[in-house]
Amino acid sequence: MERPIAVIDSGVGGLTVLHELMRQLPKEKFVYLGDTYRCPYGSKTKEQVREFVWDIVNYLLKRNIKCLIIACNTATAYTIKELQSELTIPVIGVIKPGGRAAVNVTRNKKIGVIGTEGTIQSRAYSKVLHHIDPTLNIYSLACPPFVPLIEKGIIQEQEAKQIITETLIPLKDTDIDTLILGCTHYPIIKDLIQKVLGPDVKIVSSGEETARETSSILDSFGLTTVNSDMLSLNHEFYTTGELEKFKEITRLIFNENLNNLNEVKFNNAVFS
Amino acid sequence: MERPIAVIDSGVGGLTVLHELMRQLPKEKFVYLGDTYRCPYGSKTKEQVREFVWDIVNYLLKRNIKCLIIACNTATAYTIKELQSELTIPVIGVIKPGGRAAVNVTRNKKIGVIGTEGTIQSRAYSKVLHHIDPTLNIYSLACPPFVPLIEKGIIQEQEAKQIITETLIPLKDTDIDTLILGCTHYPIIKDLIQKVLGPDVKIVSSGEETARETSSILDSFGLTTVNSDMLSLNHEFYTTGELEKFKEITRLIFNENLNNLNEVKFNNAVFS
Repeated sequence: MERPIAVIDSGVGGLTVLHELMRQLPKEKFVYLGDTYRCPYGSKTKEQVREFVWDIVNYLLKRNIKCLIIACNTATAYTIKELQSELTIPVIGVIKPGGRAAVNVTRNKKIGVIGTEGTIQSRAYSKVLHHIDPTLNIYSLACPPFVPLIEKGIIQEQEAKQIITETLIPLKDTDIDTLILGCTHYPIIKDLIQKVLGPDVKIVSSGEETARETSSILDSFGLTTVNSDMLSLNHEFYTTGELEKFKEITRLIFNENLNNLNEVKFNNAVFS
Repeated sequence: MERPIAVIDSGVGGLTVLHELMRQLPKEKFVYLGDTYRCPYGSKTKEQVREFVWDIVNYLLKRNIKCLIIACNTATAYTIKELQSELTIPVIGVIKPGGRAAVNVTRNKKIGVIGTEGTIQSRAYSKVLHHIDPTLNIYSLACPPFVPLIEKGIIQEQEAKQIITETLIPLKDTDIDTLILGCTHYPIIKDLIQKVLGPDVKIVSSGEETARETSSILDSFGLTTVNSDMLSLNHEFYTTGELEKFKEITRLIFNENLNNLNEVKFNNAVFS
């Protein structure tokens, strides 16, 4: 039996990353765990996020995973270094792949980054981008209303559109040619964001980029699945939140009804 | 002094990869060696290409390089496994990054690959692509006239346009939505290729993709340059061919006159 790849997130945003991973790595088996019950992570302290992530990681390590993908920018910003040094399997975050893709895409070296308060305050993207090229101009903007909108599933409403437009106003006057969606929830509202910023801004979604780097990293660690019955992979999906809502949003993202959706509870998941 | 990254090619095609590398990794110092004297590699035997590549690699190893990029598809197809097992530094080829990018880009799973006879006959791209996803449809086409056209620098001529159009005829009837330029010379004639195939075919250039993977691999090996005086990197360029022609084509690719262009001869470089 092939060992699965784990994909974790604070909620449902990481499903956009998983969707890309399943498309680009069709031979691999995935286990997804979204911590919707304690979502959003963006407004929690670093110590809280660390605790949540370790709950999830300890749960998944028992399933003999071969690779861990932190499909959440806040969790990546706060925990990736610790996880990479503590675990023996490769641990892949979304921030560096997103950053590298933006460096690839930009022509005028002006890059916008939007994310949760936690991600933006951590300056994780600025650090990665300036580490690659100190001459880049970075415009960062925290967008705290976005994740709740998406988790509530009200993105089709007029109210949602207005909130997105208003939140992005500070970026309208910049001359950015590239915008990093520094939160894995945001691809779900990518079209609305594109509309607000206009067609000249190229939007980089960390999900696609992370999927590509995962392929390369599995390869260099000799962990790629060679033979696989692609029709019976039986991917597993877990949420700490409400199962019905989870079903609904997976249907929205995958455009089909998925099997094997489950609830999971952690003992200490009594955060509110 | 930071250790340089070596970029090698059968001639000048790898300069397109180098150009991207310099843009995406502006803190790194590069040493380029193009074996124009023995170019093209595409029509040589595997044993000949192996010998040529080892000449170059042995020459560059003396310069304390920290990473080797084989910016030539034919050389990658024939030598990457051997180099990866013999050398202690990371060795990066252009085939896997190009393949992964195509899997990312395609929507209808029909991918075209063009390259030299050597690359196409080696089936290197088909193997990489089917290894990732066995359900992909691959259309491969050897384009032997392209490299000589480019190395001669006659790509602006009407004759060149006609040769390109005629060579690509077999791909016109396929339904590919993605084309891999499986030769690092081809980005120089990318616009002409795009014109022949029409705007609906997305062209993947292995150069850009290889630059991105290099960034990720340097990072995971802890080899990224942290501090660097970006203005005095003093990249070095070597050709085994004519220096004047080399100057001309670097000017075409980099849009500026580069310093530090040199000729180098290998003792056994008496191939004709």
